[in-house]
Amino acid sequence: MAVAEICIFPLGTQTPSVGKYLEPVFEVIKESGLKYMTCPMGTVVEGDIDEILALIKKCHEAIFKTGAQRVVISVRIDDRVDKELTIESKLGV
Amino acid sequence: MAVAEICIFPLGTQTPSVGKYLEPVFEVIKESGLKYMTCPMGTVVEGDIDEILALIKKCHEAIFKTGAQRVVISVRIDDRVDKELTIESKLGV
Amino acid sequence: MAVAEICIFPLGTQTPSVGKYLEPVFEVIKESGLKYMTCPMGTVVEGDIDEILALIKKCHEAIFKTGAQRVVISVRIDDRVDKELTIESKLGV
Amino acid sequence: MAVAEICIFPLGTQTPSVGKYLEPVFEVIKESGLKYMTCPMGTVVEGDIDEILALIKKCHEAIFKTGAQRVVISVRIDDRVDKELTIESKLGV
Repeated sequence: MAVAEICIFPLGTQTPSVGKYLEPVFEVIKESGLKYMTCPMGTVVEGDIDEILALIKKCHEAIFKTGAQRVVISVRIDDRVDKELTIESKLGV
Repeated sequence: MAVAEICIFPLGTQTPSVGKYLEPVFEVIKESGLKYMTCPMGTVVEGDIDEILALIKKCHEAIFKTGAQRVVISVRIDDRVDKELTIESKLGV
Repeated sequence: MAVAEICIFPLGTQTPSVGKYLEPVFEVIKESGLKYMTCPMGTVVEGDIDEILALIKKCHEAIFKTGAQRVVISVRIDDRVDKELTIESKLGV
Repeated sequence: MAVAEICIFPLGTQTPSVGKYLEPVFEVIKESGLKYMTCPMGTVVEGDIDEILALIKKCHEAIFKTGAQRVVISVRIDDRVDKELTIESKLGV
C-alpha cells in the first residue's frame, strides 16, 4: 500500500483563483473509493500503485474537461514493502 | 502571506523508517511560531516568504544534526498578492 | 503530448549513495522508447499521459526489484491542449 | 554543497504560455553567479543552502515584479555531508 499526494494547478486561467477547475478533480478522488485526506497543498490518497496511477489519469481527464488549456500535476508517492504504510501511520497517529 | 509544504527525507539511513530523523524537524517547525498543519506527506506552514525560507534553513540544520548524511528537501510554496492565502482558505474552509 | 519529470529516491539503503538502485530505473526509461533527457534532479520524458503513467509503473517495479524497501517517487507532469509541448519547447530551444 | 531544482509557475495569466513571466527569473538565476543547468521542468543550481534560499527569495521577487498575481514555487534540494555533490556528479558525469 502506498500513500501519495496529488497537487494539480491549471495555468492560463482568467483569474488566479482556480477552485472551480479543481472541484471536478475532488469529485473524481471522492468517487474513487480510495481513502483520502484533503490537505492545503494537495490531496493525499492511500492505494496500491495501480490504483494511484489510475486515479491520476482520471484527475488529468477531469481537469481538462473543465476547459483548462494547460495543467501541472505534481505527485509524490511513498511506498514500502517492509511494513504497512497508511495515512495514519504517516501522520504518526 | 504564503502557504508552503515542506517534505524532508534522509537518505542512507540504516532502516526505511525515518521518524527519529524527522522529530527534531517537527520541533523546529513547532517552535517557529508559524501556523502549521501536519499532513501525511509533509508539514504545511503559513508565513511570508522570508519566514518560510528561514524555517527551511532551520529544518535543514535540524536534520543534519541528527547524523543524517544526505537529505532531500522538497518545498512547494503557493503565494498570491491579489488576496489573503491561508491554510483554511486552501482547504476551502 | 505531456512533458514529465520523474525523480526517485530509495530510503533505508545504509549508504547515502543510491546510484546502484537507480541504474535499473534508467534502463527502463531508455527501453521505453520515449524521448528523454537526464537531468541532475530527475529524468524528463515526453509522452502522452498513458505512456507516462505506464512508465512510472515500470520504474516503481524496477526499483523495488533492486531490493529497496522504501521508495519515494516524485513526478511533475506539464500538459497542455492549446499547442504542442516538447522537451525542446520547454527548454526554449 | 547542495544541488537544487527550482520550478516556478504563475497562475491566472489569461494565456497558458508563461515564458514572459519566467524570463526575469532566468536573469536572476544567471546573475546569481551560481552554477546552473536549464532543464525542461526547472532550473538546477549548485550552492550551499544559504545561497539557494537567497536565490529562491530573488526568484520570488522577480516573478511578482512581472505582475503575476499568484505563483507556485517548487524546490527540491539534495544535500549531503559525506561527499561533494555537484550537477556533474548528479548527472553521473
